[in-house]
Amino acid sequence: MFKMQLDKLFKPKSMAVVGISKKNPLSPGRIVMLKNEFEMQVKVYGIYPNGGEIEGIQLYERLDKLPEIPDLLVIAVNPDDTLDYIQQCADLEIPSAVIIGGGFAEIGIKGKKRQDKLEKIAFDNDIAVLGPNCLGVYAPPLVDTIFLPTERITKPPKGSVALISQSGGVLVDQFFVKFKERNIGVSTAVSIGNRAVVDEVMLLEYFSKVDPETSNIAFYLEGFKEGRAREFLKFARESEDTVITFFGGKTREGKVATLSHTASLAGDYKIQYSALHQNHVIQPHSERELLTSLKVFDVLSHRKNPFGDNVVTYGDVVILSVSGGHGVIAADMLKTYGLNRVDFTKEEKAEMKELMNPVARDIASFNNPIDLTGSVLDTDIEDMIRYLSEIERIECIILLLLPYPPNISFQIGRRIANVVASKRKPVVCFVPYVSKYEMIIESLELAYIPVFHSIKEAVQGVSALKHRTRLDNVKKGNVFWEK
Amino acid sequence: MFKMQLDKLFKPKSMAVVGISKKNPLSPGRIVMLKNEFEMQVKVYGIYPNGGEIEGIQLYERLDKLPEIPDLLVIAVNPDDTLDYIQQCADLEIPSAVIIGGGFAEIGIKGKKRQDKLEKIAFDNDIAVLGPNCLGVYAPPLVDTIFLPTERITKPPKGSVALISQSGGVLVDQFFVKFKERNIGVSTAVSIGNRAVVDEVMLLEYFSKVDPETSNIAFYLEGFKEGRAREFLKFARESEDTVITFFGGKTREGKVATLSHTASLAGDYKIQYSALHQNHVIQPHSERELLTSLKVFDVLSHRKNPFGDNVVTYGDVVILSVSGGHGVIAADMLKTYGLNRVDFTKEEKAEMKELMNPVARDIASFNNPIDLTGSVLDTDIEDMIRYLSEIERIECIILLLLPYPPNISFQIGRRIANVVASKRKPVVCFVPYVSKYEMIIESLELAYIPVFHSIKEAVQGVSALKHRTRLDNVKKGNVFWEK
Repeated sequence: MFKMQLDKLFKPKSMAVVGISKKNPLSPGRIVMLKNEFEMQVKVYGIYPNGGEIEGIQLYERLDKLPEIPDLLVIAVNPDDTLDYIQQCADLEIPSAVIIGGGFAEIGIKGKKRQDKLEKIAFDNDIAVLGPNCLGVYAPPLVDTIFLPTERITKPPKGSVALISQSGGVLVDQFFVKFKERNIGVSTAVSIGNRAVVDEVMLLEYFSKVDPETSNIAFYLEGFKEGRAREFLKFARESEDTVITFFGGKTREGKVATLSHTASLAGDYKIQYSALHQNHVIQPHSERELLTSLKVFDVLSHRKNPFGDNVVTYGDVVILSVSGGHGVIAADMLKTYGLNRVDFTKEEKAEMKELMNPVARDIASFNNPIDLTGSVLDTDIEDMIRYLSEIERIECIILLLLPYPPNISFQIGRRIANVVASKRKPVVCFVPYVSKYEMIIESLELAYIPVFHSIKEAVQGVSALKHRTRLDNVKKGNVFWEK
Repeated sequence: MFKMQLDKLFKPKSMAVVGISKKNPLSPGRIVMLKNEFEMQVKVYGIYPNGGEIEGIQLYERLDKLPEIPDLLVIAVNPDDTLDYIQQCADLEIPSAVIIGGGFAEIGIKGKKRQDKLEKIAFDNDIAVLGPNCLGVYAPPLVDTIFLPTERITKPPKGSVALISQSGGVLVDQFFVKFKERNIGVSTAVSIGNRAVVDEVMLLEYFSKVDPETSNIAFYLEGFKEGRAREFLKFARESEDTVITFFGGKTREGKVATLSHTASLAGDYKIQYSALHQNHVIQPHSERELLTSLKVFDVLSHRKNPFGDNVVTYGDVVILSVSGGHGVIAADMLKTYGLNRVDFTKEEKAEMKELMNPVARDIASFNNPIDLTGSVLDTDIEDMIRYLSEIERIECIILLLLPYPPNISFQIGRRIANVVASKRKPVVCFVPYVSKYEMIIESLELAYIPVFHSIKEAVQGVSALKHRTRLDNVKKGNVFWEK
C-alpha cells in the first residue's frame, strides 16, 4: 500500500492556501480559499506575507505560523516559489499538496528541470502532490480546489464515480456539465495536470482499495504516463470496482486519424485496447458511450439498485413506445449494441391487447417494438410494464416515454417507478429532455430508474447493463455460456 | 407547375375541422380546432352533426352549411368516413385536406384499397391531400394541424427551413426539440404520413418554386416514394434552394447494418448517394450533422447574414480558445471535416502577444489553436478577433468560448457581435449550454453568429459553411480550383 497519504489529499480535515491576492479578488488562490471557507467543510487557512485578513478570514504570515499542520496545501504561486513551498511541506510534514500553476514540464527544458526537483522532494518525503498545472480536487462536501468561481461552473451530484482527467478544462466543461445533465454522481473528481507525482496508477490503487465511496473509476487520459501502463493493468485486474478508460484529445484522435497511414501506431492502439480489455477495463467507443456507461454503473452501485438481482446477460429486450417511428429507430439500433428483440406468442399478444383501453386497443401494435399509440393512458403503460415484467425471457424493457399524447399525466413517472419497485425488472427509459417534463424525469430518477434523453443513449444504456453483467461474471470466475 | 394548390394547404385563409368530440376534450379534431382558433391566424370552422358550440365556437352541421368554402379541411374521423369527406372536398371544391387518421395502406390490403380510392378522388379533382396517417402541417403563424396540445410539445422558431418528415413522431420529438435547442427556424414543417397524394417531389417543387419564405428544404425520409426518385433529382438540380436529405429509421439503419453482408444493398445505397450528390443534394452523415448544416444554412439565408460576402472556400481556420484542452480537441477534428489550420508568422505571434493583458500575455499560446488561458479578459478576446479578422488567409474563426474564467463578463457576446458586425469575418462559436450563460448565447444569436453547444458541432458548422460555398459555386457554374 501507499506511503503517500492520498486520503489527506482527497479527504483533508484542514488545508492552507498560498497565492492569495489582496488586490485582485479573482486571483486563483483567493477564489480557492473563499470557496472552501464558505462552501465546503474543510477547515481553511490563508497564507499572506503581511498577515491581515480578507472577508473576515484571518491570514497567516507563514506556514509555520499556522495553529496546526494542515492536511493539504494548495499552491497558487509562480513556479520557483512553488518549489520552495513543496520543500516547506517536507520540512513541516504537510502530507499533501495541489499545485495549480504551470511553468513545469509543459513549457520545455527549463520547466522539466523544475519538475525533476519537485518530484525528488515529493517522493523523498512521501508528499502526495497533485499537478502541477491542474485544477486539483473536487471532493464534495469536503474540499474543492478548482480556482473557477462556483457560480460560473456546473457541479455534478454526489455519487459513486471517481472521475480522473488529464485535462482540467475538459473535466469542468465537458464532464461536469454532462454529468449534471445526466444526473451521474461523482465521489471525487481529480484533475491530474502534469501528473508529476500522483498519477493514474496511484489513483487507481487509492480509489480501488481505500476509498469506500467509490465503486466506479473513470479515466479520461491522452495516454498513460510513460512506464506506468503495466502497473495500471495490474491494479485494474485486481480492482473490485469497475474501471473505465477513455482516451480523448490529441492522442486518441491522432491514433484514429493515423490508423490508415501507420501500421505501427494502429498496432499500438490495438495492443493497448486488448491489454486493457483482458484486464477487465471497460473501454467505451465514444464520449457519449462513456457517459451512458457511467450513468448505468452509478445506478447499479447504489444501495437502492432498483433492479435487485435481475441482470441483463444476453441482451434480450422489448421496446415499449407510444410512437411507431421511435420504436423503429430503437429497434434498428439493437443489433449494433449486441441486443436482441424478444418475440411474442399469439397468446401474449392477445393478452396485451386485452390490457389496453378500448380506443388504443384496436390501433396499437403488439409486435416488438410495441407501439401503444398516441391514444395511450397512464394505466396502459403501467399495466404493460407489469405484464412484460412477468415474462421471464425478457431481460430488460426499453421504454420510449414521449409525454406528448394528451392523456399522459405527470403521474406517469411515479406509476412506472412503483411497478419497477415491485417487479424489479430492469427498465431503461428514453424521455426527451424538455424542461416542462422535469417532473416525470425526476420521479423516475428518484427511483434510480435510468433515464436518457436520446434513443441511442437508452439503447447504449442497456448494452452497458449487459457488459457489466458479463464483466462481473468474469471477475467472479463464473463460467459463462452463450445461449 | 401544379394543378394542385399546395399554397391552400400551407397558407390557408380558412379551414374546417371534422372529427370533433363534444364529450372528449382531448379528441384530435377538437384539439386541432381549438389550437387554431386560439393560437393561429387561420379562420377556423368546426363541423358537428348536431351543430351547437364548444368553448364559444359555433359548430356547423355539414360542410355545405359553412358560410364559405374553406381552403383546407382537416379530417380526424374513421377511414371510411374520411373517404366520404374527401368526396365532399371534390363536390364543394375544397382545394386541400389533411388526413390525420390511419386505416389506409399501412394496415394491409383492406387499407390499400381505401387508399387507392382516396388517391383517385384526389388526383381526379386536384385536391392537395396530406396523409393519411400524419400530423399534417405546422406553418406559423397561420396554421397548425398537429393534434398534440401545444403546451405538451416544443415548437421551433420561425425561419428559412422547410422541414418534411415521413414520421410525425420524429418530426415533433426529435426535430422540433432539437431545432428549438439550436435556434433553427422553420418556414413550414410537414408530416407526410403515407404520402398517398402530396409526396416529397411535390413538396420539393412547391417549396423551391412557390414559397418565398423557404430557402432550405430538408427531408427526413425512410426512402423515396416508389417511382419518384428521378423526379426528385430533377427538381433538386433545378432548385435555387439548398436541398438536404437524411434517410433515417429502418431503411438507413438497415442499409448500414447490411453493408457488410449484402453487396447489392450496399450498391443501392451508394448509387442513391451519388445520384443525390450529383444533383446538388446535401447528405449529412448523421442526424447531428443534419442539424448543424441546417443551423448554418438558416443563418446564411437570413437577410442579416452576418458574414456578408465572406465565404469559407478552402476551410482555412484558426481556433481561438481559453482552454488548451478544448483547443486540442477541436484541432484534432479539423482534418476529418476537411478543414485546415492556418499557420502564423513570428511577427503575427508577437503582435498577438502584444494585444493581450500583461498577466495572460506570458502564459497564453499563440500557435493555432490559440489558447488565451483562464487569465483572459473580455477585451483580449475582442482584440484578438479584430486582429484575426484582418488576416486574409484566415477564412473562419472557430471560437471556443468557455465563460468560466473569472474575468469574462456577460458583455462578451455583445462585444464579439460588434466586432463581427464590423469585420464580417465568419465566426462560429462553441459555448457550453448552461442556462446561466444564456445571455451570452443570446447576444451572439441575435447577431446571427452561429453558436453550437458541442465542439464537434462547431467544427461541423464550419465544414457546412465550406460545403455551402462549393455548392453555390457549382450551381453558378463557376470553375473551381483547389489551391
